Amino acid sequence: MNNFEIYNPTRVFFGKDETERVGKECASYGKKVLLTFGGGSIKKTGLYDRVINLLRVENMEVFELSGIQPNPRLSSVRKGVDICKKEGIDIILAVGGGSVLDASKIIATGARYNGDPWDFFTKKANPKPGLPLGTILTLAATGSEMNHNAVITNEETEEKWAVVDPAIFPTFSILDPVNTFSVPRDQTINGICDILAHLFEQYFHNTPESPIQDRMNEAIMTTVIEYTPRVLSKGDDYDARAVIMWAGTLALNHLLESGVDDDWSTHNIQHELSALYDIPHGAGLAIIFPQWMKYVLDIIPHKFAHFGERVWDLSRDGKTDRELGMSAIEQTKAWFQKIGAPVSLKEVNIGPERLEEMAEKAVCRGPLGSVKPLYKEDVLNILQMCL
Amino acid sequence: MNNFEIYNPTRVFFGKDETERVGKECASYGKKVLLTFGGGSIKKTGLYDRVINLLRVENMEVFELSGIQPNPRLSSVRKGVDICKKEGIDIILAVGGGSVLDASKIIATGARYNGDPWDFFTKKANPKPGLPLGTILTLAATGSEMNHNAVITNEETEEKWAVVDPAIFPTFSILDPVNTFSVPRDQTINGICDILAHLFEQYFHNTPESPIQDRMNEAIMTTVIEYTPRVLSKGDDYDARAVIMWAGTLALNHLLESGVDDDWSTHNIQHELSALYDIPHGAGLAIIFPQWMKYVLDIIPHKFAHFGERVWDLSRDGKTDRELGMSAIEQTKAWFQKIGAPVSLKEVNIGPERLEEMAEKAVCRGPLGSVKPLYKEDVLNILQMCL
Repeated sequence: MNNFEIYNPTRVFFGKDETERVGKECASYGKKVLLTFGGGSIKKTGLYDRVINLLRVENMEVFELSGIQPNPRLSSVRKGVDICKKEGIDIILAVGGGSVLDASKIIATGARYNGDPWDFFTKKANPKPGLPLGTILTLAATGSEMNHNAVITNEETEEKWAVVDPAIFPTFSILDPVNTFSVPRDQTINGICDILAHLFEQYFHNTPESPIQDRMNEAIMTTVIEYTPRVLSKGDDYDARAVIMWAGTLALNHLLESGVDDDWSTHNIQHELSALYDIPHGAGLAIIFPQWMKYVLDIIPHKFAHFGERVWDLSRDGKTDRELGMSAIEQTKAWFQKIGAPVSLKEVNIGPERLEEMAEKAVCRGPLGSVKPLYKEDVLNILQMCL
Repeated sequence: MNNFEIYNPTRVFFGKDETERVGKECASYGKKVLLTFGGGSIKKTGLYDRVINLLRVENMEVFELSGIQPNPRLSSVRKGVDICKKEGIDIILAVGGGSVLDASKIIATGARYNGDPWDFFTKKANPKPGLPLGTILTLAATGSEMNHNAVITNEETEEKWAVVDPAIFPTFSILDPVNTFSVPRDQTINGICDILAHLFEQYFHNTPESPIQDRMNEAIMTTVIEYTPRVLSKGDDYDARAVIMWAGTLALNHLLESGVDDDWSTHNIQHELSALYDIPHGAGLAIIFPQWMKYVLDIIPHKFAHFGERVWDLSRDGKTDRELGMSAIEQTKAWFQKIGAPVSLKEVNIGPERLEEMAEKAVCRGPLGSVKPLYKEDVLNILQMCL
């Protein structure tokens, strides 16, 4: 196990009807709230009206930033920062999925920074604790509700970069599984691919003597695989939505990465895909991950064998670690296919034309990953395997 | 899964040589530090000198409260509070195991309360955030380093009671496994019994649809059982000490209890044992737990069957849940015996004389537990099974 520091001050309220507390929680930070959300699905579901009412009951003045898109744009962040500065906002309330939350994290810190928020991504400035940020999660996927990560796309430069800093933890997050009942099937699938991908990034590593991290990770992977058919067959299955929601949070709240060399090369490659082609994050991960796994199998065959035995319940049957690991990878790909996720670039209409450009961009800040450092040629190889 | 709130602001620094940062961390809170510790084993190991030097390098003025005993006494807490108030202490640094940490948590909140710290236990007053509290853990056991629990014995009234309140989280905790190398074999064993008992209290419950909590719990139980022989055969096995230390923290940092009805009746019964007889906490738990398990087996036989299959690797072989569960309980008791823990009251020289008195006291604030509410007669039955 490696040395590590772990610190997570986000307060989580989990369960049915926890949404009801949002007014009082927000009001404890001031009078002016900036409500941030996405394309308006929260208006269709009634969540928007419910939240507005709960805020108004507390006599809060509500400002709005809507239209935050999947793969959130820097332009939305800049708009939000402008509102905060101009109106003297006391607290931001983000209602949505990871994109709305990520954008809001940067708005919160940007509101107290004299400069352009892209500076946090180019490392020109370090984020400082900003405005309080509350969230109401409506999609189980990114873990953004209880972590200090945010990924933003600069549409001018076609760059999709991350800020990872304790200054951007949400203050509180309301996780009411009922708010995910209306998530459409394709978004539910993308979210689940994202959750599993987060688990993979932290599970396939080279750090010895990390049995707690590995087994806890297996615990969550196994559970996600078990409960996915339930959420897909019945979107309002409360218990199944609850399990997937909590799995999504734990999959990326800094617990599983503590003490191990997590990898993240697949996410970095995927960010280039999304930056150029705007495909859903989870879909890109489902395409790339099985190929990345094959690419690094020979470095940690024992990990892939554990993955096969403990997560996919494969029996050893005299197989070598490598053989068992390869079966587990095939099983993973087949499972993605079975739940309706794409497993090739062809399925999302991406050809070979810009692979080299993506490979180049992916490694522009150095080689990716830790299991096997990936250089431009490696990334290109993996992308070609994805065709 | 039940609704829950989870919040844990303790900052943990984990790993070899993390002790080195203690001076700078403490100095960031002020000039005057109260160093709290136990019977002086930290003087023998050299940790005391090391910490004092690190504090002095930062020009801190060091006050001391030593002699905090296992099953920490209210009198120690009162002494600590007096020093804090009289000297204007800025931060408390607790160096030791759970007893030193628990006492220090109450000293920290007591230092800012105008009254007797026992008031927090009798509910006459609620603890408020107190002085900052740093800890250096020297024994893997109670999880006190990253939770908001404290158990104190009032030696005048022979009561051993708990405070559970977010106001008493440590500010930071340094978990350097090297600081546990010198823990004697019997204390290591007691610590491991305590860790497993914490896991049991949160695993054997009646809450449906909690697969993440259950499997993460199994992940840690399995790991503790796997690594215990290594720490017992070689006390300076860094990786084994590290795994047990992190297991101890995660076993009781509010993560596994979130969303389930944890039980805690065994702990409450054990507190009566320790209050009357002053036996080690872990030893009492090893004695009581297998008997409690038998007492509630018929209520949740499926849980005990899972426990047998997933933790003890027992095969089903046509057994019913109850049969498999009973085998798992026997296995648990045999394992405690094998590592050198007592499994009967006789082994710790306790006879039947005061069982009724303990049963009476255990339920004085109402029936215990959630799997099966235990009344005086139930507690007496269990204690008699322990003879």
